Amino acid sequence: MDTHTTVITADKATEEALSLATGADYWTTIDATHNGIRSLRFADGPHGLRVQDDENPDHLGIGRSLPATCFPPAVTLASSWDGELIREIGAALGREARAMGVDVVLGPGLNLKRSPLCGRNFEYYSEDPYLGGMLAAAIVDGMQSQGVGACLKHFAVNNQETDRLRVSANVDERALREIYLRTFEVAVRQSRPWAIMSSYNRINGIHAAQNEWLLSTVLREEWGFDGIVVSDWGGVRDPIASLNAGLDLRMPGRQEDDRLRKAYSAGQVEPDTLKKMVERFRLLAERTRRVGESTTVDYDLHNDLVRLAAAESAVLLTNDGTLPMALATGTRVAVIGELARQPRYQGAGSSYVNSKNVVTGLTALRARAEACGAELTFASGYALDKKFNAEDAAAEAVRVAEKADIVILFLGLPGEYEAEGRDRTMIDLPQDQIALTEALHATGKPIVVAMSNGSAVTTSNWRNNVNAIVEFWLTGQAHGNSVADVLLGDINPSGKLPETIPLRLADTPSYLHFPGVHGNVSYGEGIYVGYRYYDARGIAVDHPFGHGLSYTTFDFVDLDIIEKPLEDPVAFVARVTVRNTGAREGAEVVQLYVADHNDFVDTPPRELRGWKKIRLDPGQSGIVEIAVPRQQLEHWNELTRTWLYPGGPVTVHVGSSSRDIRLKQSIDLPGHPVLVPLTPWSTTGEWLDDPVGGPMLQAIFDSRGGLRGRMGDLMSDPAGRDSARGIPLASIAEFPGVPIDMEEIEALARTVASKSAAA
Amino acid sequence: MDTHTTVITADKATEEALSLATGADYWTTIDATHNGIRSLRFADGPHGLRVQDDENPDHLGIGRSLPATCFPPAVTLASSWDGELIREIGAALGREARAMGVDVVLGPGLNLKRSPLCGRNFEYYSEDPYLGGMLAAAIVDGMQSQGVGACLKHFAVNNQETDRLRVSANVDERALREIYLRTFEVAVRQSRPWAIMSSYNRINGIHAAQNEWLLSTVLREEWGFDGIVVSDWGGVRDPIASLNAGLDLRMPGRQEDDRLRKAYSAGQVEPDTLKKMVERFRLLAERTRRVGESTTVDYDLHNDLVRLAAAESAVLLTNDGTLPMALATGTRVAVIGELARQPRYQGAGSSYVNSKNVVTGLTALRARAEACGAELTFASGYALDKKFNAEDAAAEAVRVAEKADIVILFLGLPGEYEAEGRDRTMIDLPQDQIALTEALHATGKPIVVAMSNGSAVTTSNWRNNVNAIVEFWLTGQAHGNSVADVLLGDINPSGKLPETIPLRLADTPSYLHFPGVHGNVSYGEGIYVGYRYYDARGIAVDHPFGHGLSYTTFDFVDLDIIEKPLEDPVAFVARVTVRNTGAREGAEVVQLYVADHNDFVDTPPRELRGWKKIRLDPGQSGIVEIAVPRQQLEHWNELTRTWLYPGGPVTVHVGSSSRDIRLKQSIDLPGHPVLVPLTPWSTTGEWLDDPVGGPMLQAIFDSRGGLRGRMGDLMSDPAGRDSARGIPLASIAEFPGVPIDMEEIEALARTVASKSAAA
Repeated sequence: MDTHTTVITADKATEEALSLATGADYWTTIDATHNGIRSLRFADGPHGLRVQDDENPDHLGIGRSLPATCFPPAVTLASSWDGELIREIGAALGREARAMGVDVVLGPGLNLKRSPLCGRNFEYYSEDPYLGGMLAAAIVDGMQSQGVGACLKHFAVNNQETDRLRVSANVDERALREIYLRTFEVAVRQSRPWAIMSSYNRINGIHAAQNEWLLSTVLREEWGFDGIVVSDWGGVRDPIASLNAGLDLRMPGRQEDDRLRKAYSAGQVEPDTLKKMVERFRLLAERTRRVGESTTVDYDLHNDLVRLAAAESAVLLTNDGTLPMALATGTRVAVIGELARQPRYQGAGSSYVNSKNVVTGLTALRARAEACGAELTFASGYALDKKFNAEDAAAEAVRVAEKADIVILFLGLPGEYEAEGRDRTMIDLPQDQIALTEALHATGKPIVVAMSNGSAVTTSNWRNNVNAIVEFWLTGQAHGNSVADVLLGDINPSGKLPETIPLRLADTPSYLHFPGVHGNVSYGEGIYVGYRYYDARGIAVDHPFGHGLSYTTFDFVDLDIIEKPLEDPVAFVARVTVRNTGAREGAEVVQLYVADHNDFVDTPPRELRGWKKIRLDPGQSGIVEIAVPRQQLEHWNELTRTWLYPGGPVTVHVGSSSRDIRLKQSIDLPGHPVLVPLTPWSTTGEWLDDPVGGPMLQAIFDSRGGLRGRMGDLMSDPAGRDSARGIPLASIAEFPGVPIDMEEIEALARTVASKSAAA
Repeated sequence: MDTHTTVITADKATEEALSLATGADYWTTIDATHNGIRSLRFADGPHGLRVQDDENPDHLGIGRSLPATCFPPAVTLASSWDGELIREIGAALGREARAMGVDVVLGPGLNLKRSPLCGRNFEYYSEDPYLGGMLAAAIVDGMQSQGVGACLKHFAVNNQETDRLRVSANVDERALREIYLRTFEVAVRQSRPWAIMSSYNRINGIHAAQNEWLLSTVLREEWGFDGIVVSDWGGVRDPIASLNAGLDLRMPGRQEDDRLRKAYSAGQVEPDTLKKMVERFRLLAERTRRVGESTTVDYDLHNDLVRLAAAESAVLLTNDGTLPMALATGTRVAVIGELARQPRYQGAGSSYVNSKNVVTGLTALRARAEACGAELTFASGYALDKKFNAEDAAAEAVRVAEKADIVILFLGLPGEYEAEGRDRTMIDLPQDQIALTEALHATGKPIVVAMSNGSAVTTSNWRNNVNAIVEFWLTGQAHGNSVADVLLGDINPSGKLPETIPLRLADTPSYLHFPGVHGNVSYGEGIYVGYRYYDARGIAVDHPFGHGLSYTTFDFVDLDIIEKPLEDPVAFVARVTVRNTGAREGAEVVQLYVADHNDFVDTPPRELRGWKKIRLDPGQSGIVEIAVPRQQLEHWNELTRTWLYPGGPVTVHVGSSSRDIRLKQSIDLPGHPVLVPLTPWSTTGEWLDDPVGGPMLQAIFDSRGGLRGRMGDLMSDPAGRDSARGIPLASIAEFPGVPIDMEEIEALARTVASKSAAA
């Protein structure tokens, strides 16, 4: 053996590779000429580009980013349940990114909505991992169709803003696999994103950015992800541990930090690790090579797309028939609410877009009113800050309403209520807005509400004061036009809630845990997140998951289930006929939930396993087919540590929301048996029932005069037998009168294992 | 160094000590003459001795145990909230044990009531650790006053029967410390028990019987326990690991197993470990030396004690004034319910007592009726098994009721509903009994209900069918007389619920987790167990914790709080005047709850911190003083891993139940500051606010031109500053423009630590 000290002399390419692992500056990677990899540019922008100019590249200063189209954020798009529409948005984002020289857009955000309090929920899709994953995949598809990389974020279990750089999300593996990682798994497998961003937080104590199990075992080996992993900005703790765990790029740039270079010299980083990292950058540069090619963006077309997408995503929460409104000559319309004048159409933080063009609700409705000779008056009703007297504003609004035929009321959350970096502490509208609904209700005028908010707001404490409520979420820049299109009936709303709106904060699944203390947050509710929890506990909600009304009505008939053989990746196809029974064209989202009655694991009363949106003319019928992938039936098995569907009876629920199930059918599906080998700690019942081990054990007992003592008594008593059968074999051998000892049991287990393997 | 193989030749005392670590047979230890320790006898019997005869010592066969007094089990005694009464029961148990030659009684059981479904809840005290621990301590005191050892069981976190020999109770340290271990800690510190039994289950993956942290660090080192630790019967997996973890005695006897001897020869057990074990046996033999001295038991006196204790523990759940009943000449009383003829007065399993003397409800009430010339008729109303037609029985009961002036209805759970070894799956009365209440209600006759059940049964779905409900739980052998004493008003009930009676199973804290799958059960609700959960979530209940009516009424006035200085082990004394405002003598349990408003940790809306029972004549007033130990104010701090009370505002609630608070007072208490040293991962805000570190860090920033880049922008913006202050110092150093690097931060943290220590 050579005893000389090995001096690792890094060549230029290696030196450069070590620099490539850290950003060149705030937004770009180094120009790695020795490795033949050009500098790559990243930009914020899950729903609109935030590209900062060259003079001031490091700064948050929002005024300094280049103007871009502000699309509706994830919460809004998710309400469309419409992958095609979202793919179009993704393509538009991709076009704007290419035009701005951006290789990778930092989005979509698809963390699961664990609590309605998460300050960044507006950037996320759903409380359901399948819905969220599939819709995020659609936007990835769209972006990447333009040669621009999408970057899924924030991987993973980043479900709160409070102490986000330190908090450990303590969550069991089943909930991780079935809920929090699942939404990423679905998106990764479905859309093959070119990048993913590690989150700030810890998961069961280990930082996401240096979590090898997460970044390498699960993401790359199990899911087949082949893109780059980039840190959230400032999210790396130990750059060496991160690189070794599978993180490719530490951002932002801090090139003067030489820890990686030193670690490499000291042999703490394998050359192969670095080589793989370089290869991944090379692949990304290859994939994004169209960036830089000339491209033009039709911003007007994008604006139209925003307008349409926001209207298609609007959720009609309640309606007594007041909507849609007809404006005619002489109709007196009162528009009330400061949000009609100062719209909230996007959230705050790193996703903030310097919007090309914003239309307020007041502007849009005034134009409509003028066009048809209606009279429009306005009152602010409340303020978005605390600078003036709320009672005066409300009194003025009442005076305006009293002179009107109809009131259009803009309600929602002031911007300071929800933003990146902090969580909410309540799910109520501001008290002055609730008071305003009471005052307006007293006028007796019909009131329709347009809501603007990025995270769930309960309507339970004011819904009875108004005639109809449309949840617009955050619409993107075309705001006022989208609102007008829906309220006036140009577009028939077909949005469905991608998250439950609860009655009370105290009803929410994570209420007792969120956001944790002392750097730890318990995910004590396990897999029971969102509707899975409310349904399992039988808790009444304000508006259930999947809810959303229409200006028309739909009938569901003739549910037919076509079962597929076990080899087919599709478990079954549900076919259902939907008929538009109203007087308007409209779209319905047919939702399919599965209730699994297997005995191996507890399951929620129903889980979303498919959906399809269908558009129908009045009186028209259409057949919807929903294929349920077999993989979607699997649950994580903690004994075998695998995904498993054991087969057995399930009930298929088809409906218009998770609590408006129209058709049900019970079927029996094939599956894979749960095979758990016998051990000394298997129960005596499991031993006796085993086709191999049972007869062998019984023969030993018989040859030695059977069980005596307490265990003998129990086994010979019908009531006691179940109890004895539930005791591990090794434990019954602790009792006098049981004619077998631990050594023999261990030998027997080995024999059974080899015989079973041979069989 | 000596290279010869060391042969450990065990002397006779050592050989014998190795045998002493395992039982001699089912109930005794070996006669360890070489160590001078006599054989010690154990017996089941938390509420009555179960001593098996010598012919058949190994068998469960319940008919073979010697007759003994069957006292009320823990669920019933706990409802008295009366330590003095329970101490008397303990002394009576001790006398019977001594008379039977028993050194250690296997009880009390004091596992916390996590779910109403636990099949063994009848053997346990409460959902509140302080109440449960203090009352269990009282029975220990009583037993040990007679020279008989008590054995607390099952240590620890054994809150279910399902898969009890394997399941891992996965619970965070705060919930362990504040809830599940706390009840044992209170009992150990209060009563110094001579023995404790390790439980079957695992805790966070480690078997209780070989959990060194549990059995040695927490139990012996922290709590000062000096008794022996005995395994639950058959609960040892690895006898070597158990002995090394601190388990002294593996039961039952399996002397032919030579694993311990081999391990000792192989040096896997330290001689000192064995020596300490022997010393603990010696101490136990010394403490129980009075066993064997002649003692006589007055079984009639014990029977009277059972009768009184059960009546004093009865909980009057509802009463419209129908109770107490007056029987007079000619009063026609209908006694209905098979439980009046076949009483349930104890639970099933290892605690089952071969009762000396049992009085049924029917026998007792018939004697009372005869004594005063009332007429009594009986109908079974339902069966306890499924052998006959429930509708016929109900119809007959209705006919009997129709001819009566008053109906005494015995309801409850058939024996098969709750037993050691299995859990319940619902909290409802059997459906035929609920139907019976409906049928009887239709007669219009006044109905009073006597309930017999060992675990919580909701009355929500039938309470409106009857006029009064008394929860007798399981009364012990004097059953009928205790029931008659309460219903006829000889004893004014003063029991209070030691556990919440929920409206629905789906409302219970552990509903989504209990009893777990795949060998694991998540304690996801954390510290929010029992009323702590219902109160925190604002969930309506059937009957709240601490609830219990009386035949008289009480007023609470003049709450006065006397605060003590920080050095005093008592934090404060609450003084309150209670007046009996009704026409009968009666007792009230004054309950004191504390609402802690500290900012360091989330706390339930109120927690029981003291109580006192006071007996008053009509019109009489009395002053109750409740001292709250400072230790009871502490919460487990996960950052410092210590018990801590930081001081600050608390509200003291005094009332007649947890939801019938009569008086409140807010006070500000002194405490100990939470000191967490600065690290690189302390937030920038924590750094800047630190009296030592703040100025040093600021000086570095200032000398280098201040913060630039994004962090500079954030810090100079009023809205952004909070966000930047929440980022760890090491993380802001990841951003360009922050003029400090990781090495400097680490050095600074060291300097601050040494300066702070010096200060």
